[in-house]
Amino acid sequence: MTRTPQKEVVVVKAERLRAFVARLLTALGLPEADAESVAEVLVEADLRGVESHGTTRVAGYVSMMRSGLLNPTPSVKVLKDAPSLAMLDGDGGFGIVVARRAMAMAMDKARAAGIACVTARNMTHTAMVGFYPMMAARAGLIGLALNNGPAIVPPFGGTTPTYATNPIAVAVPAGGEEPIVLDMATTMAAGGKLRLAAKKGQPIPPSWALDRHGQSTTDPEEALLHGFLQWAGGYKGFGIATVVEILGGVLAGGLFGTDVPPMKVFGKDPLVASGFYMAIDPARFMPLDEFRARVDRLIRQIRSSARAAGVEEVHVAGEIEHRRRAERLRDGIPLSEVVYRELAALAGDAGIAFDLAGPA
Amino acid sequence: MTRTPQKEVVVVKAERLRAFVARLLTALGLPEADAESVAEVLVEADLRGVESHGTTRVAGYVSMMRSGLLNPTPSVKVLKDAPSLAMLDGDGGFGIVVARRAMAMAMDKARAAGIACVTARNMTHTAMVGFYPMMAARAGLIGLALNNGPAIVPPFGGTTPTYATNPIAVAVPAGGEEPIVLDMATTMAAGGKLRLAAKKGQPIPPSWALDRHGQSTTDPEEALLHGFLQWAGGYKGFGIATVVEILGGVLAGGLFGTDVPPMKVFGKDPLVASGFYMAIDPARFMPLDEFRARVDRLIRQIRSSARAAGVEEVHVAGEIEHRRRAERLRDGIPLSEVVYRELAALAGDAGIAFDLAGPA
Repeated sequence: MTRTPQKEVVVVKAERLRAFVARLLTALGLPEADAESVAEVLVEADLRGVESHGTTRVAGYVSMMRSGLLNPTPSVKVLKDAPSLAMLDGDGGFGIVVARRAMAMAMDKARAAGIACVTARNMTHTAMVGFYPMMAARAGLIGLALNNGPAIVPPFGGTTPTYATNPIAVAVPAGGEEPIVLDMATTMAAGGKLRLAAKKGQPIPPSWALDRHGQSTTDPEEALLHGFLQWAGGYKGFGIATVVEILGGVLAGGLFGTDVPPMKVFGKDPLVASGFYMAIDPARFMPLDEFRARVDRLIRQIRSSARAAGVEEVHVAGEIEHRRRAERLRDGIPLSEVVYRELAALAGDAGIAFDLAGPA
Repeated sequence: MTRTPQKEVVVVKAERLRAFVARLLTALGLPEADAESVAEVLVEADLRGVESHGTTRVAGYVSMMRSGLLNPTPSVKVLKDAPSLAMLDGDGGFGIVVARRAMAMAMDKARAAGIACVTARNMTHTAMVGFYPMMAARAGLIGLALNNGPAIVPPFGGTTPTYATNPIAVAVPAGGEEPIVLDMATTMAAGGKLRLAAKKGQPIPPSWALDRHGQSTTDPEEALLHGFLQWAGGYKGFGIATVVEILGGVLAGGLFGTDVPPMKVFGKDPLVASGFYMAIDPARFMPLDEFRARVDRLIRQIRSSARAAGVEEVHVAGEIEHRRRAERLRDGIPLSEVVYRELAALAGDAGIAFDLAGPA
């Protein structure tokens, strides 16, 4: 008998996991505030069920730090600074740290100007991109974040890797309802989901990727090492990805397109990204409570839609993740045994205590 | 023998078509400048091969004017006006006229502030949404336009019509290359394409729409009258459409979601839309020539991609449309005989000369 995935998890409390990751990264040379910042974003991904962008990334980050691909103590430069915009250079630092700073600046500027954007270039992996607009939504602002990255996906109709999965995320504050949070790769699946499937030895749906010959494949290893991801909606997803490349790469003054180093193995190859972070203050358009009530109304319209055959619930973007977050805050995060062992090994290497929960 | 579609067209010169449509709308009560504005956008769509949003719409517009669904002489109100944003009310006027004004304001403000957005509510059909960001790109700015509209498409997994096809368009100025122009419905196909297919009696691809039972259909009449459009990339397209509904409807202070009157027949039913128009000045991030050169570089990377089997060319968004525009400026626009006859009848009703070319 094969073991079910449910047996290969270790349930850990979010707070302990966050504290451990922060301690580990601090021990490895990150400033404490940055380590806590990174840990918070990764554990937030695990809480929301976006495990592909959660603590599964820690081992890769550490590997990148050791091989000089990630600068743990960057000197982030502000290249331009105006009332409605700014331009940052991340000095090869953690994408999470740089992107948080960029979004925080965009939020401050949007509060004054109504709308503002901040670009960031020369950083590494930004993890769960939805985190950044959620910062804005928590503060009553509409947030948008997007970034480019390693050239791994060909243009629609092509076979030369040219873009990353070019994610785009938008979050919108609601009133009685939870914020709307759209957080999506412009490919049908994020590369992280393929990597997690490969790590777990699981097949992927046939619509996610192409093999080396451009044919559909269910083998994540083949897709990751020899093939390509597929765009969501074909040329439409590629079109949105091009907008992401323009705003998040070309306008940001960073590397873009085939100039970004490719990446086959996360943690071993360079990972250079640039991004674009925007905030809008809805209170400049109408009283904030009125805006929140209008968003609530839209959410309730969607949720109360008549359902297609076989569909149990109609969801707004971010709703499933929010529910999972509430469950996991209460019951713990089911960490894959592979990730659990990686973290234990990293603790040993760093000489710090490994104090997560034992096997469930 | 059946007649081929090629025989059912009348080739007309863009300039004559534009002048005729402007004269017709002026005769029907539009201010001359507005009539010319509308005619330019419709003929631009015909030139670019986006016939679904071109002069095929004139008969519907006239029908809406006659039945009071479209205000030919609106008093557009500026509800909010700040350095980086504005909020317009279109007073039920032509969406084309209101959207052009909103984008022009966003461009002026972006030149001063670096980034700006203008919303517009309470207008009608905005036609080819790509026109508005192209205004920005021609002026060296990045433009974005999106709008909501009649509730005709259900949420992903639902069957209650809740959104329009919620188009999004972005245009980016290049240097030696033509601007990048993404102009897409967030459904796999725009409603206009179904209407044009229905008008021509042609079947549609099975991925475009669902029938009344939620099953794929190739019959545009069934999809238009009883069924639904499908989102591009399933829940991903629905997620982007939700962002369009938030920015282009909720934030704009207009009707949104199921509160927007539904529309089955263009020209007969109400068509109420709201939109969001944004411009960014790349010259605030780097010298404009440098930005243009970087966009050129990206375009050339995409175009020179190795090709998948069976693919002749890899295209950037807007490239095919630009080529078609150049051909049609030179050779004329192949107007469908149905549209040609509609325009002739409208000219007769309005008592103006019908002076387009004779049958090709």
